[in-house]
Amino acid sequence: MPAPNFDVIASLSKRRGFVFPSSEIYGGMAGFWDYGPLGVELRNNVKAAWWRHMVHLRDDVVGLDAAIIMNPRVWEASGHVAGFSDPMSDCRSCKLRFRTDDLKGPPSEIACPNCGQRGTLTEPRQFNLMFATHVGPVEDSASVAYLRPETAQAMFAQFENVATSMRRKLPFGIAQIGRSFRNEITPGNFIFRLREFEQMEMEFFVHPRDEDEWFAHWVEARHRWWTDVLGIAPERLRLRPHDADELSHYSKQTTDIEYEFPIGWSELEGVADRTDFDLRAHAAASGKKLEVFDEKAGEHVVPFVIEPAMGVDRAVLTVLVDGYAEEQLAKETRVVLRIRPDLAPVKAAVLPLLRNRPELVERARRLTADLKQQVTAMYDDTASIGKLYRRQDEIGTPYCVTVDPESLDDGAATIRDRDTMTQERVSMELVPQRIAELVEGRAQWEGIPREPAGAGAP
Amino acid sequence: MPAPNFDVIASLSKRRGFVFPSSEIYGGMAGFWDYGPLGVELRNNVKAAWWRHMVHLRDDVVGLDAAIIMNPRVWEASGHVAGFSDPMSDCRSCKLRFRTDDLKGPPSEIACPNCGQRGTLTEPRQFNLMFATHVGPVEDSASVAYLRPETAQAMFAQFENVATSMRRKLPFGIAQIGRSFRNEITPGNFIFRLREFEQMEMEFFVHPRDEDEWFAHWVEARHRWWTDVLGIAPERLRLRPHDADELSHYSKQTTDIEYEFPIGWSELEGVADRTDFDLRAHAAASGKKLEVFDEKAGEHVVPFVIEPAMGVDRAVLTVLVDGYAEEQLAKETRVVLRIRPDLAPVKAAVLPLLRNRPELVERARRLTADLKQQVTAMYDDTASIGKLYRRQDEIGTPYCVTVDPESLDDGAATIRDRDTMTQERVSMELVPQRIAELVEGRAQWEGIPREPAGAGAP
Repeated sequence: MPAPNFDVIASLSKRRGFVFPSSEIYGGMAGFWDYGPLGVELRNNVKAAWWRHMVHLRDDVVGLDAAIIMNPRVWEASGHVAGFSDPMSDCRSCKLRFRTDDLKGPPSEIACPNCGQRGTLTEPRQFNLMFATHVGPVEDSASVAYLRPETAQAMFAQFENVATSMRRKLPFGIAQIGRSFRNEITPGNFIFRLREFEQMEMEFFVHPRDEDEWFAHWVEARHRWWTDVLGIAPERLRLRPHDADELSHYSKQTTDIEYEFPIGWSELEGVADRTDFDLRAHAAASGKKLEVFDEKAGEHVVPFVIEPAMGVDRAVLTVLVDGYAEEQLAKETRVVLRIRPDLAPVKAAVLPLLRNRPELVERARRLTADLKQQVTAMYDDTASIGKLYRRQDEIGTPYCVTVDPESLDDGAATIRDRDTMTQERVSMELVPQRIAELVEGRAQWEGIPREPAGAGAP
Repeated sequence: MPAPNFDVIASLSKRRGFVFPSSEIYGGMAGFWDYGPLGVELRNNVKAAWWRHMVHLRDDVVGLDAAIIMNPRVWEASGHVAGFSDPMSDCRSCKLRFRTDDLKGPPSEIACPNCGQRGTLTEPRQFNLMFATHVGPVEDSASVAYLRPETAQAMFAQFENVATSMRRKLPFGIAQIGRSFRNEITPGNFIFRLREFEQMEMEFFVHPRDEDEWFAHWVEARHRWWTDVLGIAPERLRLRPHDADELSHYSKQTTDIEYEFPIGWSELEGVADRTDFDLRAHAAASGKKLEVFDEKAGEHVVPFVIEPAMGVDRAVLTVLVDGYAEEQLAKETRVVLRIRPDLAPVKAAVLPLLRNRPELVERARRLTADLKQQVTAMYDDTASIGKLYRRQDEIGTPYCVTVDPESLDDGAATIRDRDTMTQERVSMELVPQRIAELVEGRAQWEGIPREPAGAGAP
């Protein structure tokens, strides 16, 4: 089936506790969303998968977690204070403001899209996308500070501290996961374009002579992460090198990883060759030397930077869109989230077949507690077994464990696989271990079937 | 030994990559700090320990991850816009501003602490501690928004969405980990009082009749978390119930968990009985019903709230202060961080005894890669073995694995215990499994010896 549109995902997300409109009881807040109980878990799993592959499994990357508010001179040096802006036009009559790029013609020639008057739109002027605030007791220009619009600059500002404290030589990288903020004029498309979002960025410092080799490495490694670790369908992914005229001012070459959403091919991640632009800018502005000693050449060099940068929210959206399926079973349609077991918010749901049998309920609750020692698990007995299966399918729970009257005799329970709907009878004592193995095994070795398992029993 | 002072910890933190002054190359930023490579790991481990015990292991608590910027009406309803403030006095002569509470007398009577003039200090006026910004293209009063000064209000604003999507009945809790911001006039004491900090808060909703019982439960459960999960010395912890005159306006009873820092007994966490204050305030301001149906009584009730709330940064500081020890060995002093293995940034360091033997280095690197599949591990060969042990002791690495020439013959390596400095010879194939067991076993069953193991070989 084609990828579902964002409305379908937003509706599922709200109904099942993945994502809620922020401050909804007060009418919401455009460009801001809250992650509900299941959304937090999914998001944390996506972040953990990135951190594990970008930091823990590698020898050449370390982490950082910097403050969101940095000294404002960071943003002067980076060029954000002067240049991180969109052109805007005001209507002199109705006082509304518009992004000039969105207008259907030059502001001097067209009517105001709101009030319809002509000749009322001002010439474009630059509107900075950084959120500003004041730090300290006095509100004046000296106390202005910004919410970071990207996490990357912290890696440049702390380059020296990290390299020294961790005794690092080239090549090495600094990775960070954290919130960033951009005062977007037109946020939208659910959690695709946000004003507050979370980034996962890594700045990889290399000798200038190794620039191209490492750029190629990271494009390939990041593409593989999306397919092999997040489990995204390869046919919906593509690599798109930037044309020369769309490169950022700091970048010599950039390749985007794109996904085919219902709104079209859209960027998930960019791998950018930032050259030595940033380190030189911060060295010049701070008066500090930001370089390393290259033993091979016997001289100090300013490293080049290869940066893979992506947004967590967009990754979560991609996992939901890519995993969503509607399947026709014998008597009903089921919605199933075919996401990798290690990403699923709940790994195992324990469902007693009869909730009016206290000894059955007690045994199922005990099994839930045992399971929780190994994986995220939940207990549910608030509906018929068929309905309970559908609920778990819809939130991507890979394994349901059913405790039935026979369990009290044979001490075993039934493990049902979300994708194949096949069942396996396992001794209850071994269920936690078996589920942990299944989750880990599937995470490492197997793909997820993308086609319906076909009509059949649940 | 007594707890080390903050300077000792700050120095170790910067030197070894736990915590750096934010934007240090630009002169820093008061009240803001960045977590370096080891600090991120420690902090993530503290957060994971909280999430596991507060959410995953329980049946009655779910998570939330809300946007930092919420609709400003949230902060009007909560009382923060009107009341979250400190009294300040300005000097009319030198223009500096002071927290009135810090002045050594009434502002009308004393000299300005900066310029020394008398009669220049203004009467106190309220200074709001929330950072303000503007959202959207226009900067006016309608676009003002705030960085949250606490995470708690999101749990009240999303109470209905969470309860409905997760089919929750009383009692149940909503937990959140996330950044908060307060424009403190006098930040300081390293990461003890910050302007940007991270909170772990949980709002537990109960029937009013169960208020006292649950308050007692959470005071006890949270105290136990600090001793049994974080491994903090019980003799340096105390419970301190608030006197009636220090209770917040929303609280009926509050008990603080305090630690004996070198600066004195200080708050680590507060368990507050917030009654129905918050839900009623948001219901009144939003016009929505924020209540649940109580089946026992057959009526709708507005739940009471018991809130355990703590700061991540202060927990990290406590772990560092409490774990820090200087021990006299036969020939030297060693600094050792006696922190729980599951909190340690690095679980295992692989150290080749000779770095000029390529086959030894190769074998040690292979072992590191194997270890990384199970735990966070690192390889180091940049100094003598004695020095390498000291480095790992100082960052709290519980296990060092030494690969020596004999390893090439017998296929075994030596695992050294950080605290006892005892050594165990284990087949290299089994080392990853053995370390994983040791970390998990120590996490669950054993305490950490607080006294030096005594002089002896490393």
